[in-house]
Amino acid sequence: MGGWRKLGIIAGGGALPARIANERKTQGQPFHVVRISGSADKGTEGFAGDDFALGEAGKILKSLKDNQCDAVCFAGIVRRPDFSTLRVDWRGAALMPKILAAAAQGDGAILNVLVDMLEAENFLVIGADEVVRELTAPAGVLGAHAPDEGDRADIRKAAAIIKALGPFDVGQGAVVAGGHVLAIEAAEGTDAMLLRCADLRKDSPDANKRHGGVLAKRPKPGQELRVDLPAIGPQTIENAAAAGLSGVAVEAGAALILNGPEVVEKADALNLFVYGFSSKEVE
Amino acid sequence: MGGWRKLGIIAGGGALPARIANERKTQGQPFHVVRISGSADKGTEGFAGDDFALGEAGKILKSLKDNQCDAVCFAGIVRRPDFSTLRVDWRGAALMPKILAAAAQGDGAILNVLVDMLEAENFLVIGADEVVRELTAPAGVLGAHAPDEGDRADIRKAAAIIKALGPFDVGQGAVVAGGHVLAIEAAEGTDAMLLRCADLRKDSPDANKRHGGVLAKRPKPGQELRVDLPAIGPQTIENAAAAGLSGVAVEAGAALILNGPEVVEKADALNLFVYGFSSKEVE
Repeated sequence: MGGWRKLGIIAGGGALPARIANERKTQGQPFHVVRISGSADKGTEGFAGDDFALGEAGKILKSLKDNQCDAVCFAGIVRRPDFSTLRVDWRGAALMPKILAAAAQGDGAILNVLVDMLEAENFLVIGADEVVRELTAPAGVLGAHAPDEGDRADIRKAAAIIKALGPFDVGQGAVVAGGHVLAIEAAEGTDAMLLRCADLRKDSPDANKRHGGVLAKRPKPGQELRVDLPAIGPQTIENAAAAGLSGVAVEAGAALILNGPEVVEKADALNLFVYGFSSKEVE
Repeated sequence: MGGWRKLGIIAGGGALPARIANERKTQGQPFHVVRISGSADKGTEGFAGDDFALGEAGKILKSLKDNQCDAVCFAGIVRRPDFSTLRVDWRGAALMPKILAAAAQGDGAILNVLVDMLEAENFLVIGADEVVRELTAPAGVLGAHAPDEGDRADIRKAAAIIKALGPFDVGQGAVVAGGHVLAIEAAEGTDAMLLRCADLRKDSPDANKRHGGVLAKRPKPGQELRVDLPAIGPQTIENAAAAGLSGVAVEAGAALILNGPEVVEKADALNLFVYGFSSKEVE
């Protein structure tokens, strides 16, 4: 993490960008926030920074340079833009052919174009996990509850599904219960997927009892880890409990746990396990 | 289709079982319906037949034999049973170890246990597609509209996703729009998946216009085609239109189109294409 002084935070949606900004502020380290319009959450509005559309690449660059940033971190979810109404500046327009070609491959590829541009401009692009190292999921059991053998089999299956979907630049989550694939995450996001599982089970003939099953999250193979790490937070635990799951598992070292103490507290109270699996363990 | 006289129809949920029974009745061919409790639709209640739980394998066998069936066709969706409350008879109990082992592999595997049992009892197990050959999707453009190059790329991607999920005994459908994977079907079914896509787009910043994208359905690799063929019907077309899709594509010869004339009529009116792709075309 040495060799750079000031961090530019490219802020997409979700709690992570504000969390990183807070972390920097608390530790007295310099930073500057670039909020992506239509994506960034309100949580980042209290910090010094600017608001630009994803297509305003020139303004984003200028803002980072004017504010003496020498490192950049992409954090949070950036919504796929509507290209027909996207605000672009000259620099963004020059990148458009690359961005449109990348769009056909999925959202991850769009962000890679921006990473390449920033690196070509000599910025150091740093992963959200490196910036806030303590958010990265550790290996093993995190709270009071542990996955049993059946849960571990479900974790392996869910992890294998996410891996198999690697070439398609799609979701990072799946829900498996007793070998049965309940849901696979695509554009809807983890929370919507878990709400769907709760709905499915509400309508099932055996809705009266705890069903078991696990949510697993891990990066896609080949994913640009510096830009888009899978993450869970307290809301994930609540939604997993509402879906009747036994627990939540993430790939250790390759996923973030936001508000870790609250995650563990909620999981303990709701009788869910939180588990960090190694990639070796699930192959 | 020769060599047998009377067809036993094992009826799960959806319109297909009643459709097959109607087809037989219209053509004056003998049949007997076994409705799976908790799965079969009301549509099959008007036909001569019995009602049994999935675990009452002995009663199902006896019913088929008493009614002189020599061929059997599984049709429609059989809900995964709640094993803790499943009604089983002696024969079903004897099959339970196999069924429970299969359950860990997914719903398709459960039905394979029943296929094996019926074949061991010398029943000819016939695919729903063979029984009602004219329901099978033909190759090419079916209505007034045709997929363009972008749609074809989306069809290829969705088809590849379903293929990649083959080892996991999961859904047979996916929605891809402009290279972006909107949704992957698991336990929720095609209609719920399409409603979710409509919701996703309602919330998107570009909700004002037609988005494009395709729903593709095809069998999983290695799927027991005689038991569980992917199907579309008029409702699929309506839901696809509500999700702003450009069209619906199914694998020719390996998927069913229920109420074909109504499907084409609705698709034409709603400006959607209906397309049968060959497996060769999407590899």
